[in-house]
Amino acid sequence: MVYQGHNALKGLIIMVYSNFIDLIDLNDRPVSWWKKVIELGAEIAGHPEEYSDACKGKIMATLFYEPSTRTQMSFQTAMLRLGGTIIGFDNPATSSVAKGENLKDTTKIVSGYADIMVMRHPSEGSAKAAAISAECPIINAGDGRHLHPTQTLTDLLTLYKEKGRLDDLTIGICGDLRNGRTAHSLCKALAEFRGNSFVLISTPTLRIPAYITDILSARGCPYKEVNTIEEAIGSLDMLYMTRIQRERFESEEEYAAQKDIYCLDRRKMAMAGRDMIVLHPLPRVDEIAMDVDEDKRALYFKQAKYGMYVRMALIITMLSEKDNKTLLLSGRVHNGVKCTNPRCITNSEHYLPKSFRGTRDTLECEYCDERVMLEF
Amino acid sequence: MVYQGHNALKGLIIMVYSNFIDLIDLNDRPVSWWKKVIELGAEIAGHPEEYSDACKGKIMATLFYEPSTRTQMSFQTAMLRLGGTIIGFDNPATSSVAKGENLKDTTKIVSGYADIMVMRHPSEGSAKAAAISAECPIINAGDGRHLHPTQTLTDLLTLYKEKGRLDDLTIGICGDLRNGRTAHSLCKALAEFRGNSFVLISTPTLRIPAYITDILSARGCPYKEVNTIEEAIGSLDMLYMTRIQRERFESEEEYAAQKDIYCLDRRKMAMAGRDMIVLHPLPRVDEIAMDVDEDKRALYFKQAKYGMYVRMALIITMLSEKDNKTLLLSGRVHNGVKCTNPRCITNSEHYLPKSFRGTRDTLECEYCDERVMLEF
Amino acid sequence: MVYQGHNALKGLIIMVYSNFIDLIDLNDRPVSWWKKVIELGAEIAGHPEEYSDACKGKIMATLFYEPSTRTQMSFQTAMLRLGGTIIGFDNPATSSVAKGENLKDTTKIVSGYADIMVMRHPSEGSAKAAAISAECPIINAGDGRHLHPTQTLTDLLTLYKEKGRLDDLTIGICGDLRNGRTAHSLCKALAEFRGNSFVLISTPTLRIPAYITDILSARGCPYKEVNTIEEAIGSLDMLYMTRIQRERFESEEEYAAQKDIYCLDRRKMAMAGRDMIVLHPLPRVDEIAMDVDEDKRALYFKQAKYGMYVRMALIITMLSEKDNKTLLLSGRVHNGVKCTNPRCITNSEHYLPKSFRGTRDTLECEYCDERVMLEF
Repeated sequence: MVYQGHNALKGLIIMVYSNFIDLIDLNDRPVSWWKKVIELGAEIAGHPEEYSDACKGKIMATLFYEPSTRTQMSFQTAMLRLGGTIIGFDNPATSSVAKGENLKDTTKIVSGYADIMVMRHPSEGSAKAAAISAECPIINAGDGRHLHPTQTLTDLLTLYKEKGRLDDLTIGICGDLRNGRTAHSLCKALAEFRGNSFVLISTPTLRIPAYITDILSARGCPYKEVNTIEEAIGSLDMLYMTRIQRERFESEEEYAAQKDIYCLDRRKMAMAGRDMIVLHPLPRVDEIAMDVDEDKRALYFKQAKYGMYVRMALIITMLSEKDNKTLLLSGRVHNGVKCTNPRCITNSEHYLPKSFRGTRDTLECEYCDERVMLEF
Repeated sequence: MVYQGHNALKGLIIMVYSNFIDLIDLNDRPVSWWKKVIELGAEIAGHPEEYSDACKGKIMATLFYEPSTRTQMSFQTAMLRLGGTIIGFDNPATSSVAKGENLKDTTKIVSGYADIMVMRHPSEGSAKAAAISAECPIINAGDGRHLHPTQTLTDLLTLYKEKGRLDDLTIGICGDLRNGRTAHSLCKALAEFRGNSFVLISTPTLRIPAYITDILSARGCPYKEVNTIEEAIGSLDMLYMTRIQRERFESEEEYAAQKDIYCLDRRKMAMAGRDMIVLHPLPRVDEIAMDVDEDKRALYFKQAKYGMYVRMALIITMLSEKDNKTLLLSGRVHNGVKCTNPRCITNSEHYLPKSFRGTRDTLECEYCDERVMLEF
Repeated sequence: MVYQGHNALKGLIIMVYSNFIDLIDLNDRPVSWWKKVIELGAEIAGHPEEYSDACKGKIMATLFYEPSTRTQMSFQTAMLRLGGTIIGFDNPATSSVAKGENLKDTTKIVSGYADIMVMRHPSEGSAKAAAISAECPIINAGDGRHLHPTQTLTDLLTLYKEKGRLDDLTIGICGDLRNGRTAHSLCKALAEFRGNSFVLISTPTLRIPAYITDILSARGCPYKEVNTIEEAIGSLDMLYMTRIQRERFESEEEYAAQKDIYCLDRRKMAMAGRDMIVLHPLPRVDEIAMDVDEDKRALYFKQAKYGMYVRMALIITMLSEKDNKTLLLSGRVHNGVKCTNPRCITNSEHYLPKSFRGTRDTLECEYCDERVMLEF
């Protein structure tokens, strides 16, 4: 980590690097790097036994400040299948580390024990905060509602293996697109490849945010927004199902009236093409009927397994490139300005430099990407 | 898994196989298979170091939906001593898998990560339900009050190693024989070998169920039922102690009056033969006085170690025979008929085919073995 | 374990050995043995990769009856870096072992699975109690407020590596010296080496107990007691910071007035010599300002890493010398006399022989070292 600060007219310029490849936000890495990880993931999926000693002697720490058994198991299995070993915790209630200590100290200590760290934390920006002090590479396994980059890598590997390409695809995404972290990341990621078009399926009140459609437009990706699976499914190469939580509907009546529209069942599957595939980040609740599981196009369980392979590829890549650097902060600290997102890590870990991108009127928190309006 | 259903006059015939050797119920496997596992266990107990790489590169998932640290440790140690590795959870309260997801999805995902799964679950029939969707072999490590086959294998290996045989034994079993899962399984298992006779020691209200004594009779095994350890202990080759829970006695006075009768102490040990051995599935509460531990015939701690060896043998056997099949369901689904056992897994996981053995008036649930009376 | 009791005039003489090297109390081992462990730790710290198979095939059980994630991770990492594997629990609330069973049975069973056991327990004397029945070596990782010998070994290895010696040092220790287990152990340990002098920094009410200063005097170690960091820091080779809990101050006003005096910050660091090092057992709360972390003399995170190396050395040493013996009890059991410390393990595990050192009027519990006054 190198701080390179000097006093400027508007705020203190700050530059913080880690000495490792960290994976905080997929967009911190070029698309060429994603492709490398995905191609390695595809190779591992074909011949996993050839990688069974790739991380022999290495230790991965999984620090799960909120439980997510599935994600944690996926990372642990990935490391074990590479011949490495694991330490960590999963239970904030009984973990004295999770309770009594600031994130910096925990990160310092655990990164002294481990060769690579995986962190899940309820606060947004927590993985970046950890990377600032960690003495080993760190993978963001979910920081609040903010980012979960290995889910997106999982989705990309699944498409790459099952459709044979990441471009020229018609992608349907269904569910709560307003709040769905996974849906946003997937749109942003697939917009980086040529010729993809999007069909965004949700209720009118749960449409995808404007900043995502702005990205799609800027990248030249056609998209349309529709209200039902039926009107979209016939044209899709892939249908990505996600949950709509009951409480996201406008009212209980609205929920009762609409929920079946967003539930994928055999009848709707019958309207889809023979090669369309169905993905889901899991866990599902009711949005895919269980008898769809028997359909050969239902690939969500296979997708979970690709998640393990892509994590194997990621761990190998991060450990073999570990002399590299990651730019963590490059904004400015403004006297007295704090992030307005109450779940931002800077509001609980007070020693962190409160660094923002942007200028005068609109600042963007470098941890959680919240936009802060300033009154001057 | 293969469903082979067709509509029949009385209910829909269902046939479900897994593509693996599962161990749900010891009685699903022939006695010759038990013997093979026990003999391998005996060999491993003699030369454990020769098996230290037998499962190198393999991962065992231990899914403990209710805590049972001792059982889980026994399985984990077994896998580690074979050179394999472990993932899993033990804490339903913090496990998001245990909370938010149906058993099928969890099983599908975790069996995609692991090479073999061990499951403990409070619902009866849960291990069979898991085996229906699992993509790897599964071991039942206790499904509610129903079955716990590796405890019985542990008991058999201990007898085999310590008495040199599984036949021509006089077996005493003491405790709550009415409700004791372990006692029932042990009786059923030892009845499969020649020349064994049984002394069943309990209060009159806690006698062993008729279906067990029916089995003993059918197999030609002499048995008698007695009220005290004293009147039995002199004639035994093995005394199997189990708990009587305080609340099982008829009244608090009854408990106070009787409890010492079912507590093994030095005085009673003095009445036993020099070669009689004492076993206990552990944990004990007060039914064996602690000073009995110093007696050379007290083998319950050694028995726990045999539990580890027999699990090593079981894992090797199941992983090496994994191209085999296990018949999971072969009964009929009757329109609208549900299992009457509230703790049966079919009453919480509604997608499971409600399959019953038997005919018209008495059906037997294929998951939990509950008998369901039908009114026509 | 060998009991060698015979009836004597005053109480029953008792002699209990384990058949292993146990580490219950650092003072049970000669200083030459400490040095051997520390020198091996230093060697491992220099070339950890040379020890990556030193414990291949060995299993360490970590039984944490109270959570201490940091200590548990340190032990687990140590074992994994030696090529061994780990089982254990960390959550007394969900561990059925921790809840339902006496310590003897748990110890018997788990030591049948594992090659070495690490135990943390809220009761004082618990590690010794466990060693009495364990069938493998045991390491005390904290028994209540009593002992935590691997923390002291960590401190010694840090001094040895960073100062190049364990003698002729001026040692400052700051914080709650009355109640601080770590501070007491460190004084006792460093008093064993020549030429060390001590500056004990605390409030007058939180001075170190007389039995510690008695030891310092007996060993010929100069010491002085002071009220502030400022008056001491200029002369120190090492400053050992520990917490003062808010509730230890005489009053809330006292806390407000005094707390900054016992907080190390940049200003105070500026008064220290260039070669003075700062240690802390961690976790810290407010007693070291976070900007001190950037100071090259702040070695507490490095110290945590030495903790891992010294535990690696300890595990190797204990496993390679395992034919040895440890004397656990050599006192007398007096009819009806119990330890007066309510947190002593003998008051919850009633089968333990209540053994005391000393004579008639003053007895010292052999588990928790409490002095028991007898009235005759």
